[in-house]
Amino acid sequence: MRITRPTLVLDKEKALHNISKMVEKANRNNVRLRPHFKTHQSAQVGEWFRDHGVNTITVSSVRMASYFARHGWTDIMVAFPANILEIEAINKLAARINLHLVAVNIETVAALAKELEHPVRLWLKIDTGYRRTGIMAHDHAAIDTIIEKIKASDTLGFEGFVVHDGHTYKQTDADAIQTIHNTTVYLLHLLRDRYKKQFPDLQLSIGDTPSCSILEDLRGVDEIRPGNFVFYDLTQQRIGSCAFDEIAVCMACPVVAKHPERNEIIIYGGSVHFSKDVLLEEDATENYGRIVELTKSGWGEPLEGIDLVSLSQEHGIVRTSTEMFNRYQVGDLMGVLPVHSCLTADLMRGYLTTNGDRLEHLSGISEVEGI
Amino acid sequence: MRITRPTLVLDKEKALHNISKMVEKANRNNVRLRPHFKTHQSAQVGEWFRDHGVNTITVSSVRMASYFARHGWTDIMVAFPANILEIEAINKLAARINLHLVAVNIETVAALAKELEHPVRLWLKIDTGYRRTGIMAHDHAAIDTIIEKIKASDTLGFEGFVVHDGHTYKQTDADAIQTIHNTTVYLLHLLRDRYKKQFPDLQLSIGDTPSCSILEDLRGVDEIRPGNFVFYDLTQQRIGSCAFDEIAVCMACPVVAKHPERNEIIIYGGSVHFSKDVLLEEDATENYGRIVELTKSGWGEPLEGIDLVSLSQEHGIVRTSTEMFNRYQVGDLMGVLPVHSCLTADLMRGYLTTNGDRLEHLSGISEVEGI
Repeated sequence: MRITRPTLVLDKEKALHNISKMVEKANRNNVRLRPHFKTHQSAQVGEWFRDHGVNTITVSSVRMASYFARHGWTDIMVAFPANILEIEAINKLAARINLHLVAVNIETVAALAKELEHPVRLWLKIDTGYRRTGIMAHDHAAIDTIIEKIKASDTLGFEGFVVHDGHTYKQTDADAIQTIHNTTVYLLHLLRDRYKKQFPDLQLSIGDTPSCSILEDLRGVDEIRPGNFVFYDLTQQRIGSCAFDEIAVCMACPVVAKHPERNEIIIYGGSVHFSKDVLLEEDATENYGRIVELTKSGWGEPLEGIDLVSLSQEHGIVRTSTEMFNRYQVGDLMGVLPVHSCLTADLMRGYLTTNGDRLEHLSGISEVEGI
Repeated sequence: MRITRPTLVLDKEKALHNISKMVEKANRNNVRLRPHFKTHQSAQVGEWFRDHGVNTITVSSVRMASYFARHGWTDIMVAFPANILEIEAINKLAARINLHLVAVNIETVAALAKELEHPVRLWLKIDTGYRRTGIMAHDHAAIDTIIEKIKASDTLGFEGFVVHDGHTYKQTDADAIQTIHNTTVYLLHLLRDRYKKQFPDLQLSIGDTPSCSILEDLRGVDEIRPGNFVFYDLTQQRIGSCAFDEIAVCMACPVVAKHPERNEIIIYGGSVHFSKDVLLEEDATENYGRIVELTKSGWGEPLEGIDLVSLSQEHGIVRTSTEMFNRYQVGDLMGVLPVHSCLTADLMRGYLTTNGDRLEHLSGISEVEGI
């Protein structure tokens, strides 16, 4: 297929490798894999997981849950503090599938208890250090109050505790990530011990891609919910979660201008394609993408002496060595590994596989009946 | 209309005010207004311009040009270095409308001369200081070579010189913006003087919203191409292009969690809704949006002591004073003025007007025949 404008290319073999590696790790550790589908948001990529025996998934919005429910997924966690304004859509979903919601406060649980028309499995989100949202792990009073409310409800079932250790994303050291993970498991075990008499089957679920990628031993929890690993990206490579050759998506961008007086190449590909997520280099320069050579079957390792250093709405500025500058001509396609594959995929709204297939992304789909 | 998830609200009255103000300024200065439609990307908002007598427009991609051509626009400039890989789509467009393209190098002009099947009006993009792309204003040799190529072509007509002074976006001082504008006009006049014997009708076109908003005297050029002014945003308010009450779009985001121990409120609204564009405050803190009170008819001025300070994929963290913290409850909607309205609109894929109408955005439209 001829590429004429910015296109997100997906190497299916690399994605399958990433999926099977994570499936095997989950099996080895005897934990359930509930992969986060917000990274790919694609019915077809979802099928690759199903082919690996996965039948429980995580999403980040009610709309995403509805999309995957429509594609035959029947056990879905919406891993975002339940938004009670969406109660109507939640009720529709809960009527059809095993819906898992997450709560972080009594107000939401009270509203759910009042307005739910069908059973929902409720998880409490615990903050074990990330400090974005969640109930503090030591806040037993808050947890007790919420659990009483759940017990008094006909529709809510208490499932357990979820954590997202987003602070692992700021680390580049495996020991630091191990420490974060150990802290989380320790705090979750304290909670389980406290509530296991009331709820002998309560579950512990953790979620971040760095921990799930880097650590071999994930025992001590019941479920893992990584998402980004299906594609990985430069952020995960920097953290240490993957090698460059495990990054499964690559932008292909037309070269539209060259500026020899400053060794800069202008590509058609800007913040509306990549998103503005950025890697800071050691010299404090900003990096919006690493350049790779596109080949017939995919792409190679990142090239040295050439980087995507600036983005405006549609333009990208690539700064190069003289050798690299001479390698590209106006009208060529340049390959760029993205900094954050979730956001790039969300903006690109679809994929072109290295085999030439077009795959959908939820963000490229107009509202349809039933979503 | 009930809002249940992140929604981009558009105040039509404010947008109409912004449009009529710019139309009047263009008329007073006797310059043609060719507004950049990449900000709104909406057929319906386009009609508001048409109602003000505008019939020449600017877009940033061939796809966007095709979309507006389908909606009856017949004089469209694609203000991006022509991407010769899209020659097929360019030829289709050039067969139907007065298509204006922009070139920055001889390679592109040579390819266009060879492959165009219908007349196209060609502008040369000149770099007068922004240093993103464009031919340096003093590079007469490059310009001469390109113009000879244009003259030898049956399909290309030389229209004139375009500039985008994107470096005005880094300014917050009207005098600095005046200086940038004066420099550009001076350099463009030198070019016009040099080529006016060959091309007595050659046109000069400039484009940025700060210059066009802040300066009263825009004489000396033939055309202005601002875009962002239709909605404005916090970036433009900071620059001085607009007042807060001229910002015509506002995000409405559900409140999903509150953290009294750190005076933080979590909203449903993250980088997939806002984009990651950020304003740096004087104390070096990051600001992803100013909070406003939503009212029945729209919204008020930004509140003090409350700001959107962090974004992840779907979560936004709002840091507040104690007074402001107590003002919002879980389940409320919070109004947020965006940092960069073009990117927010592109991500939100549609608008809800304060009158309750849904308006489309090109990014919310699946590919259809004819685009």
